[in-house]
Amino acid sequence: MHDTHLTLKPTPLCPGGPALSPIVAGCWRMAQWGLSPAERLRWIEQCLDLGVSSFDHADIYGGYTVEGLFGEALALAPALRQRLQLVSKCGIKLVSAQRPGHAIKSYDTSAAHVTASVEASLRALRTDHLDLLLIHRPDALMDAAGLADTFSRLQAAGKVRHFGVSNHSPAQLRLLHRRHPLVTNQIELSPLHLAALDDGTLDQCQELGLRPMIWSALGGGRLFTGTDPQALRVRATLEALAHAHGVSPATLAYAWILRHPSRPLPITGSQRIAAVQEAVAALSLQLPAEDWYRLWEASTGHEVA
Amino acid sequence: MHDTHLTLKPTPLCPGGPALSPIVAGCWRMAQWGLSPAERLRWIEQCLDLGVSSFDHADIYGGYTVEGLFGEALALAPALRQRLQLVSKCGIKLVSAQRPGHAIKSYDTSAAHVTASVEASLRALRTDHLDLLLIHRPDALMDAAGLADTFSRLQAAGKVRHFGVSNHSPAQLRLLHRRHPLVTNQIELSPLHLAALDDGTLDQCQELGLRPMIWSALGGGRLFTGTDPQALRVRATLEALAHAHGVSPATLAYAWILRHPSRPLPITGSQRIAAVQEAVAALSLQLPAEDWYRLWEASTGHEVA
Amino acid sequence: MHDTHLTLKPTPLCPGGPALSPIVAGCWRMAQWGLSPAERLRWIEQCLDLGVSSFDHADIYGGYTVEGLFGEALALAPALRQRLQLVSKCGIKLVSAQRPGHAIKSYDTSAAHVTASVEASLRALRTDHLDLLLIHRPDALMDAAGLADTFSRLQAAGKVRHFGVSNHSPAQLRLLHRRHPLVTNQIELSPLHLAALDDGTLDQCQELGLRPMIWSALGGGRLFTGTDPQALRVRATLEALAHAHGVSPATLAYAWILRHPSRPLPITGSQRIAAVQEAVAALSLQLPAEDWYRLWEASTGHEVA
Repeated sequence: MHDTHLTLKPTPLCPGGPALSPIVAGCWRMAQWGLSPAERLRWIEQCLDLGVSSFDHADIYGGYTVEGLFGEALALAPALRQRLQLVSKCGIKLVSAQRPGHAIKSYDTSAAHVTASVEASLRALRTDHLDLLLIHRPDALMDAAGLADTFSRLQAAGKVRHFGVSNHSPAQLRLLHRRHPLVTNQIELSPLHLAALDDGTLDQCQELGLRPMIWSALGGGRLFTGTDPQALRVRATLEALAHAHGVSPATLAYAWILRHPSRPLPITGSQRIAAVQEAVAALSLQLPAEDWYRLWEASTGHEVA
Repeated sequence: MHDTHLTLKPTPLCPGGPALSPIVAGCWRMAQWGLSPAERLRWIEQCLDLGVSSFDHADIYGGYTVEGLFGEALALAPALRQRLQLVSKCGIKLVSAQRPGHAIKSYDTSAAHVTASVEASLRALRTDHLDLLLIHRPDALMDAAGLADTFSRLQAAGKVRHFGVSNHSPAQLRLLHRRHPLVTNQIELSPLHLAALDDGTLDQCQELGLRPMIWSALGGGRLFTGTDPQALRVRATLEALAHAHGVSPATLAYAWILRHPSRPLPITGSQRIAAVQEAVAALSLQLPAEDWYRLWEASTGHEVA
Repeated sequence: MHDTHLTLKPTPLCPGGPALSPIVAGCWRMAQWGLSPAERLRWIEQCLDLGVSSFDHADIYGGYTVEGLFGEALALAPALRQRLQLVSKCGIKLVSAQRPGHAIKSYDTSAAHVTASVEASLRALRTDHLDLLLIHRPDALMDAAGLADTFSRLQAAGKVRHFGVSNHSPAQLRLLHRRHPLVTNQIELSPLHLAALDDGTLDQCQELGLRPMIWSALGGGRLFTGTDPQALRVRATLEALAHAHGVSPATLAYAWILRHPSRPLPITGSQRIAAVQEAVAALSLQLPAEDWYRLWEASTGHEVA
């Protein structure tokens, strides 16, 4: 194991932006973990002990239940709120018994929906503010000026500190960014999913000085279980490199993400603290560029041009 | 039927741009309508009575004949010119008996061609100026500085008031826009043709504050006659929504266009005044976002991500 | 043959940029030419006599040998250095006996690699400076600020006068251009390879005022030897147009490149001086726009929209 080369201290997503921990704990699947409130609190505390102080949510996770599960745990130790950062998202409307008004899965970035979603997130999380709110998916019907107004009102009310987007193309991000400063684009990137490297998404992050947050850094598990040719190639390379560097394959995958010059923040997905630890361990591994390209080559199936 | 929520008054395409009616009457197929000059004049007057005061032309429509047919009708009531706006296009050269000099279908944005085309349009339309001239297709050989000069000369001579493009990518529009301010991009958009939603075209319109004009808003008729799976899905949804809102399917389709935050101006294609009326009726229907997404889902064949 | 309409005098790639000859002699394949040092010198002199004073290199050409072959010839007549411009590239690492440290073909734009590559190029070319250095391929791991620093240091040391990129997308070029002014994007363009016309690459060059350098202007030979339908269509059109204009097919192909408003600089690939001459001859032929579109149509297999 190498010396830590990336700080564990929360650092800003952009100048003036919110400081998040370099690894973000994803709560996406928390509803499936089957934990009691006390166990959830224990999990939060263990994350904090590892330096993972930022928690990623969305209104819709667990069918609109995850924020409540997290808030229930947080209520057992309210002082923790000062030591952690809460990220949530809105803009997707699921058809759900929790939201009988929704007739079809769709996007909504209207003032009414965004404001109501934030209010619901604050109640569920049992907090008075979100550190960061992201628009979950690009809404073709987004009125940029109107949404910027909504952001300003939420900010002025102290309910949301910073705003960003997720899964937005460069043109979509720019349109909103001109109306209200955004601090991140939360996107998919992994050795199995390279699109953001070439389609301008990560170029834009660097140009604007916004660090991306990364979801599905392990390919949603396909990295370890997929049986398609790409997954098999990437897994073999990952295991060889992990062995050579004396780390786990998951740590190697996170190190591959962290190697990118946009300074991404990977989001974990597991309830296992050992899995969060594997992500944190990647902060101590500066992957050589040639190793980064070995995974690129395994993923694309051909060497660079 | 709802109250009118979109004004019928002509409003500018952009700050300082030409004011066009919210529905634009497309003259594309006028040569096939088989109308006498007096009947064409009657059609123009009926459009005006509906608040449709802007007419969309191109030099090439009807094999270089439509502008002449329109001008012939206008000559019967020259005072009408004050009450209507004329949009035309140039830049495509058709192989045609009308243009014996053309050896191959190609694009041309040279000063000589654009100037000659405008002069011919003015003669045919029997007017002294165009309210708006569009470059019909992106010409790979366009010299942006040279074309901007041509625009300035036509503007100084009082022959063309404003300029725009049609079917241009964001990069192509921007290149020319930096040299001469453009007021619109006339593009294809319909429940059967969603590309402009994702490829940056409509994002750019909103960023630059240019309202798009929309051609083929009914998919060139495929919306009502197509037998491919996409057309069948969209038609079924369109009919169900039209029924629910108490409007015709065509009105619903226009309302789907008008719902976009770029504030598009759809162009009709029919000689039937009832069809123009169906477009105007869409101004009175504010489509709920969920209904907009129902058509998106029918078009793509899957729900949103 | 027409009068010369494009100057043979070196002209800047952009305001303040390096002046290169309008045709650039590509040295890519020099290692395969089997020439003695004196013959190579003779070739250089013949290029200069034709007004082709700029020579295109890369560290990796000929498996890291071409720059040395060129420098060996130049050493026979060192005064020539004043009369020619040297362009080289770096950023690709080949697995090669010449570079035992490379374990995999990969990209590298680190300060260490770029600086070492420039030093090696200067030694091999037996010169004290490069007129222009290009980053050969987009490196996903490029740290734009760091690379800009490297450029500034090389410039301050007098080792490289100007910088550019090759095969970079608009987003990739822009990211680096904001940190250090670039003077060109060296890209592929030919009647067989039209991508740069539509993907924003050439629009960006024009917007930023950077003239592109063009590699594979003859489709890497496929223009004359390919047996696929596209190559057959293009060749037939090329031969007919060449016949009509009284030039060789190769000259016609170069004229097709030179016709683009971005004012491209094509790079030759042959050791035959007659082949370089065919490129120079294209400077005297202003291809009519319709002929340009005939080749476009032959390439795509359909007329313009």
